[in-house]
Amino acid sequence: MNFTKMHGLGNDFVVVAEFSSVPDRIDSLAQSVCDRHFGIGADGLVLILPHERADFAMRIFNADGTEAEQCGNAVRCVAKYVFDKQLTDKEEILLETRVGIQRLKLVIERGEVAQVTVDMGEPKLAGREIPTQVEAERVIDHPISVADGEFRFTAVSMGNPHAVIFVESLESVRLHQAGPQIETNLLFPRRTNVEFVQVHGPDEVTMRVWERGCGETLACGSGACAVVVAGVLNGRTSRNAVVHLQGGDLQIEWRESDNRVYMTGPSRIVFEGVY
Amino acid sequence: MNFTKMHGLGNDFVVVAEFSSVPDRIDSLAQSVCDRHFGIGADGLVLILPHERADFAMRIFNADGTEAEQCGNAVRCVAKYVFDKQLTDKEEILLETRVGIQRLKLVIERGEVAQVTVDMGEPKLAGREIPTQVEAERVIDHPISVADGEFRFTAVSMGNPHAVIFVESLESVRLHQAGPQIETNLLFPRRTNVEFVQVHGPDEVTMRVWERGCGETLACGSGACAVVVAGVLNGRTSRNAVVHLQGGDLQIEWRESDNRVYMTGPSRIVFEGVY
Repeated sequence: MNFTKMHGLGNDFVVVAEFSSVPDRIDSLAQSVCDRHFGIGADGLVLILPHERADFAMRIFNADGTEAEQCGNAVRCVAKYVFDKQLTDKEEILLETRVGIQRLKLVIERGEVAQVTVDMGEPKLAGREIPTQVEAERVIDHPISVADGEFRFTAVSMGNPHAVIFVESLESVRLHQAGPQIETNLLFPRRTNVEFVQVHGPDEVTMRVWERGCGETLACGSGACAVVVAGVLNGRTSRNAVVHLQGGDLQIEWRESDNRVYMTGPSRIVFEGVY
Repeated sequence: MNFTKMHGLGNDFVVVAEFSSVPDRIDSLAQSVCDRHFGIGADGLVLILPHERADFAMRIFNADGTEAEQCGNAVRCVAKYVFDKQLTDKEEILLETRVGIQRLKLVIERGEVAQVTVDMGEPKLAGREIPTQVEAERVIDHPISVADGEFRFTAVSMGNPHAVIFVESLESVRLHQAGPQIETNLLFPRRTNVEFVQVHGPDEVTMRVWERGCGETLACGSGACAVVVAGVLNGRTSRNAVVHLQGGDLQIEWRESDNRVYMTGPSRIVFEGVY
């Protein structure tokens, strides 16, 4: 099997484009391929498939064999793959994923994809839509008390729930204590992702993320989007800001004209292989 | 750069044979290559080089960029590489490593290397040679008390120190508590590797290993050797036994005729790549 190893901000994938449909036993294939000692090693196995109504379809399988619905970092890798390997010459691509057809805009530098802009959709802000137990049309700067201390969060759903917490300095944050306590707090009936954010200026923030069910990760695209939405709601950032994550930078725009959030970020090819 | 990803019992390496000497900035190359999210991902980078007095030379660099002296799992990978890729047709290979020239014996099945036997040298048993603070010619079934409880260890040096502890059942072992406590106990001035061992019969044991400075690992070749030496000294195993590790099995023989320990185990090619 020919594959390409890629990553988006350190979220890494084995990308395979030689199938015409999802092969049998994809779950055990994903497990073997993603194993970091006995296999190729990756966070997920990404299949690029043909599609009738879009330019391509993408399916993504986690290291545990389960199928993921969506992943902004993987979508950017797919966009780079199909353009750099000349499967298309379009600079705007329609990609079918399990959450529908996504429109991807490519930023080309020296004939290769340097950045990809992904339309991440409209944020949801009402308490019941996050969901949180706080019954309000907006949940902004709301107090929460956990074992590790008192915090104030702003709730944003980007299809998945986020609790965004602004802090003076990230250095004092005990992410591995406070993260899981907030994630599993009764205020969040389906648990929540947790972002701690230090604001450097209206156009620049740094975040650390505690992902629901995962723990700390290098990068969370939907979390970066939630951070800028919360920044605007709290008057702390403008609508277009760079977000520094452990794995690299994302440019996030919450566009006033259509209320949608656009995420622009890099993807990289690391190596080509035969498995 | 062309490379082959290999593993010996899950201890995994990027193997490169296209250099004639160690390249400049090997430390940063090893760091980039071994990074599991941004690079190829491996425990180490192995270079196979030409040598005047041996068939080949091997140099191994850890993921942090430092050079390792020796690694039984990597040696088996090198032996499979040079035979399977027809760089040699010898079934006994002389390999130069930083600890001297090693003689490797290949077990061939269907034209490929299935197993490799490595001469791991003579065990050292005197307390000062381990080193431990216990002043005795043999340190067998010696008591040690740490926060997690009372244990009895047998000390064996295979070039590096090992404290081997026989237990009724591995299920009750709290490796991540007891391991570091024993590793850093004052009895071991240079710290120690720690092996917990359950004996199934004179020819078969299962071990879990806490490696000095690393924590739990899938496989430790020198640890498996120390386990069988300790098994013989305690009358618990014969001189030739299979050792089950998390990453797979090793056959260990402490040969009476020459007092040397021979380790036989597999190595595997996982994929070929271009970086």
